[in-house]
Amino acid sequence: MLNPADQRFARKLPSGVLRDVSPSYLEEPRGRFHGQAGLVAAPHDVDETAAVIRACAQGGVPVVPRGGGTGLVGGQVMPDGVAPLILSMERMTAIRAIYPEESVLLAEAGVTLQSARDAAAAAGRQFALSLASQGTAQIGGVLSTNAGGVNVLRYGNARAQCLGIEAVLPSGQIMHDLKRLRKDNTGYDLRDLLIGAEGTLGIITAASLVMAPVPAESGVAMMVVDSPSAALSLLSLAQGRMAGGVTAFELISGQGLRFLDQAFPKLQQPFADRPDWLVLIEVGLPAGLNADQALETLFVKGADAGLVSDGVIAQSGQQAADLWAIRETIPLANRAIGAIASHDVSLPLSQIAEFITDAGAMLLAQGDMRINCFGHLGDGNLHYNLFPAEGRGREDYDEIRKDLSRQVHQMVVSRGGSFSAEHGVGRLKAADLAEWGDPARLIAMRAIKSALDPRGIMNPGVIFPA
Amino acid sequence: MLNPADQRFARKLPSGVLRDVSPSYLEEPRGRFHGQAGLVAAPHDVDETAAVIRACAQGGVPVVPRGGGTGLVGGQVMPDGVAPLILSMERMTAIRAIYPEESVLLAEAGVTLQSARDAAAAAGRQFALSLASQGTAQIGGVLSTNAGGVNVLRYGNARAQCLGIEAVLPSGQIMHDLKRLRKDNTGYDLRDLLIGAEGTLGIITAASLVMAPVPAESGVAMMVVDSPSAALSLLSLAQGRMAGGVTAFELISGQGLRFLDQAFPKLQQPFADRPDWLVLIEVGLPAGLNADQALETLFVKGADAGLVSDGVIAQSGQQAADLWAIRETIPLANRAIGAIASHDVSLPLSQIAEFITDAGAMLLAQGDMRINCFGHLGDGNLHYNLFPAEGRGREDYDEIRKDLSRQVHQMVVSRGGSFSAEHGVGRLKAADLAEWGDPARLIAMRAIKSALDPRGIMNPGVIFPA
Repeated sequence: MLNPADQRFARKLPSGVLRDVSPSYLEEPRGRFHGQAGLVAAPHDVDETAAVIRACAQGGVPVVPRGGGTGLVGGQVMPDGVAPLILSMERMTAIRAIYPEESVLLAEAGVTLQSARDAAAAAGRQFALSLASQGTAQIGGVLSTNAGGVNVLRYGNARAQCLGIEAVLPSGQIMHDLKRLRKDNTGYDLRDLLIGAEGTLGIITAASLVMAPVPAESGVAMMVVDSPSAALSLLSLAQGRMAGGVTAFELISGQGLRFLDQAFPKLQQPFADRPDWLVLIEVGLPAGLNADQALETLFVKGADAGLVSDGVIAQSGQQAADLWAIRETIPLANRAIGAIASHDVSLPLSQIAEFITDAGAMLLAQGDMRINCFGHLGDGNLHYNLFPAEGRGREDYDEIRKDLSRQVHQMVVSRGGSFSAEHGVGRLKAADLAEWGDPARLIAMRAIKSALDPRGIMNPGVIFPA
Repeated sequence: MLNPADQRFARKLPSGVLRDVSPSYLEEPRGRFHGQAGLVAAPHDVDETAAVIRACAQGGVPVVPRGGGTGLVGGQVMPDGVAPLILSMERMTAIRAIYPEESVLLAEAGVTLQSARDAAAAAGRQFALSLASQGTAQIGGVLSTNAGGVNVLRYGNARAQCLGIEAVLPSGQIMHDLKRLRKDNTGYDLRDLLIGAEGTLGIITAASLVMAPVPAESGVAMMVVDSPSAALSLLSLAQGRMAGGVTAFELISGQGLRFLDQAFPKLQQPFADRPDWLVLIEVGLPAGLNADQALETLFVKGADAGLVSDGVIAQSGQQAADLWAIRETIPLANRAIGAIASHDVSLPLSQIAEFITDAGAMLLAQGDMRINCFGHLGDGNLHYNLFPAEGRGREDYDEIRKDLSRQVHQMVVSRGGSFSAEHGVGRLKAADLAEWGDPARLIAMRAIKSALDPRGIMNPGVIFPA
């Protein structure tokens, strides 16, 4: 049994750690969950964090860790059960050190992703994790959810860009594992266990992050492809030519372009006729190569192979930003239109084209709707979102919504895919995990959870259904 | 209490799973540990593996997993305690599937690293993990020890090249997590937990491995540098120019070259005067670049910056192989000379130059000896090996050997380094881990071990001292 984070419990906490429970601590971006008002603690350092967690462990008080609050699966709020202590990392915003010669950056959990990126840039390097919410999302949350974004294809997800962590375990003990090593085989990989655990196994308070070299040459292009299948062949062609220099490969659908027309009519689009499928390609190349020329050669080879029919290569940084703006505005257009249901799925690359065809046919047989399928094709990660037919509203689909999502997830899982590619499980998909997850894996996960957090104080209801 | 794998216990195992206990199952390459003779089981598939583990769990019989047996820390033998069941993966040698369009390969645990590399090459890709022992080392062992090797700088260690695993947990349950996904955020990262766990948390029976594109252009050079510090500056210069195209960056010492002269006098060396420090650089570059020219430009820029004084660029595949042979023969030369003590350490890159200076001074103050320091400089991973002075033998150092190693490890750890960069903990370094490991991390590791393997049957004595 857990106990509420009430005023009596507040007296057990270090002085000066509490903040007012403002409504912003109880919200999440999609408005599907509303958190309860317990206490809000914002520790100044790792020792204070440990003191808070020790108090919660002793008192059996639930802890909801909170970073920038941008997560999309409700992991940052606790709507049910006793009132929790919300642990905000907002005061731990130091970049503790930068080692340019090691390409390593030590950042505290409350540093925003944008600040970490800026610090790396100031050191002549890059922190290559990039997401739409990077101005608000914090390093602690980005790691706890193993965030992805647009450059995973080249640089990996958050897990791949972290060498070490400092963390407070559910017992209140501090794990000092803030290593700056590329190789360290000394026991279990607790770093990768806490990364992606969504705050259920402890609190990441700081991390050593890998900075990557800024490619000497870079370029951006948009190419029209016939189909997702052609897009995948183009990806394969590009990767064979670029020796790992493809830094982003994003799929955009004609539906997405038409949503942009509707919601953002002033946004200029490069192709007047709104093709069915586009890809946005970004490359980062060695000195001595001209990126525009490399992209042009790729276009010519792609056209020769019958994969691409039209294309545009950015001739300036501004044009590159304009092409990226098309990709990045699509989620905003989606929000303006109002989705029936959104899915963040991944599939084995060879399954993607067929999935898009089959899922579309299956869904359209059940009702009139619009599908905007887009995302990080190079990672096999699709944002597969359903929208009302023109002239109809989201509420017209209330009765079938849940079942549609179930069918999409079922189709994804049966093809060896994942029902949560990059957003995580949170509360939103805890039941999905219980249903679709491998039984032995779930048993092992629960055993680890019980071993590290025997009272179950850390983010209850997240990953495991309450 | 554990029970021996005796003839009575043998009757509980699936028929046809046992093999004779030949001496080769009881050995490890350095001859420091000699395993006990219990039973040897070699299952044909994952179900049979699970049946064996279930029997061991029920009977409380210790299991020593065995791959190719090439590990250097004694993880593959059990010298003390009751006679164990040795679980050999030698019969699980299928490459279950190859997906060239996904760049994924599904290999069973008993597939040798070389076979996996050959299969990838036949599909027009590469499996980019490369080690001296790859002809014998098996995928299961390579993953269980999170092996490294010469291309970690570009492609990561074994962990980074695995998308999913199938494993038998200590309960005998099969975890089906053989995913072929680049992104999958659905709960705890048990894959990375079992990878590197050295067989103490379960048996990896198969893995989905990432194949990388073969770079369109590649080249190899050897350059003479003044010092390790100059080598690191050259690395930084190379990475800034090559956009991640540096696939290997190996440090070689003059001592290593002189050992080659002594042990392999017929091996041709490119520099007549045996310079104090060399680096071997390998690059993999996009189409449109000439790798030799890129290496030549790097040499010129390096010379301008005062970092390199001489160099040779391979003009053919044979010349490239000859340069690599120098690097790869050094461990054999070391063996021929006979080390007093070997260390597989890693350091933050900015600490390496100073460590080499300080450790050398510290050791030479304590006795006359020769130091061969070489290794994967790009990863901060040094093989730091001590040898008798000329005319003296290994046994002359018996009294100080242990203390010398302790001092080396102490110096490494105090600089934020690791006492086991790529070889793992095994039995050899279990006491070191207990001594140098972070206390909170060790407690969490033990809690996880107890949760998943409550009777402690999986590879007892490895990672945790018996």
